[in-house]
Formats: sequence, structure tokens, C-alpha cells
Amino acid sequence: MQKVFTMSQTAKFDPTSIKYNEAGLVPAIAQDESTGEVLMMAWMNEQAIQRTIETRRVTYWSRSRKAFWIKGESSGHVQELVDFRIDCDRDCLLVVVRQTGAACHTNRRTCFYTAVRDGKEVELMAPMT
Amino acid sequence: MQKVFTMSQTAKFDPTSIKYNEAGLVPAIAQDESTGEVLMMAWMNEQAIQRTIETRRVTYWSRSRKAFWIKGESSGHVQELVDFRIDCDRDCLLVVVRQTGAACHTNRRTCFYTAVRDGKEVELMAPMT
Repeated sequence: MQKVFTMSQTAKFDPTSIKYNEAGLVPAIAQDESTGEVLMMAWMNEQAIQRTIETRRVTYWSRSRKAFWIKGESSGHVQELVDFRIDCDRDCLLVVVRQTGAACHTNRRTCFYTAVRDGKEVELMAPMT
Repeated sequence: MQKVFTMSQTAKFDPTSIKYNEAGLVPAIAQDESTGEVLMMAWMNEQAIQRTIETRRVTYWSRSRKAFWIKGESSGHVQELVDFRIDCDRDCLLVVVRQTGAACHTNRRTCFYTAVRDGKEVELMAPMT
């Protein structure tokens, strides 16, 4: 875990201080603690943030299902929260996680498996077996 | 740069194939090529994507200024595009970059310098000098 260099501000964290969009959501980027891979991006609302911090199981808000989405609840591909970070504008989150199995629903380690190179799309990895 | 494991799909990349939100924007996460740090998240529209790929200088759309934002144009803290990636749902981008100086307007290397630990906010790094 990244070292704390300065601790000048140690205010209590208040989830209402996050800047949510008009739908009450904030983007949350998940990064693998050990490899540094960016795994996925999904959305959290205020209560998803609270649940993520309290349970240490990363919990998003599913915009399609309109329900809490405890990552890995059905697939087993859970994300254990290692560190919870907030950006300078307080309108984006970074969750550093221990990822079990694949983060992507296509069974690839990361959702960002497609690259654009020389104007063409190429797949960087196959689904995990 | 990450190795290409499979090249089964080598379709021409079409920026109109990206899923933009109701404002015509898509979130773009910037990651440092060498350290793996997640530096920032900002927004791109179709033309910003085209400019980023063509010029290899990462270009966002500034929602506050309603204008293209060539990262580092005024600060010198440019982002040179190393790899352009798309997620499985085609509604989020990952730009792997060579970052000059600080990515954050607070002059910190990354915008995600605040962590929540034991219910308190702590700053992980000081501004660069």
C-alpha cells in the first residue's frame, strides 16, 4: 500500500462530500493492487461508497439493473478493497483491489482488452480458462 | 507496451462505435506507462478521440470550458499517447501515456492523492517542487 507522506489533513471522510452527477453517481476505477492493471470502471452512489468502505467488498451501483452490485457476488470474482482514493475534484474514485479471477464479464482479467493500433482494433488477451 | 496475444479481430477503429453519454462524452482514464499509476480521469468526445489518436497528444473535452483541452498545452504537462484502449462495453477509454511533470492541476503527480483510511482522509503525496 502506498506510503502516507503527509497527513496534514485528517478530516473524517464524509460520503456526502463527493460530487455526484445528476443521477447521483460517481465513476469508480478499479485497479489491481499487485499488477497495477486498470481492471474496469463502474459507478457508485453514496450508499455503494459506504458499503464498499464498511464491508471492504467493492460494491457498485448497476445502472442497468438499478440495484447494488456487489462485484463477484454471482461470479465469485470478488474485489477486496485495499485502498479507497478520491481525486482532486472529488468527482472520481479509484479503488485499489485484490481481484479474484477475471474482472471482466467476458472472463478476461481486465475490461480494457482492446487496443487501437495503426488504426485497427486488436485484442490484447484471450478469456481466462 | 503490452503484447498482442490474439489478433483475431482487426477491424478498423471507428470512433462513432464508442458509446457516448447523453452529452456526447465518454470517460477516459489516463495511466502512466512506466509506473502504472492512474493519473486522472477526464472526458472525450468523438473529435477528441480522433485528435488524440492522430496527434498522439492526449486531448480531452473540457466540460467547464466547453472546448478541446490538449493536456499540458498551457502547463507543459503533456501526455504523449502510448496506447489507446477501449473497454468491453465500449463506454470507457484507457489512455496509457508518457506523462511530463504533474498530471494534476494541484501539481501532484496524480489526481488520486487522497485516500480514506480508518474513516479519515489522508493525503498520499505533496505537490511536486
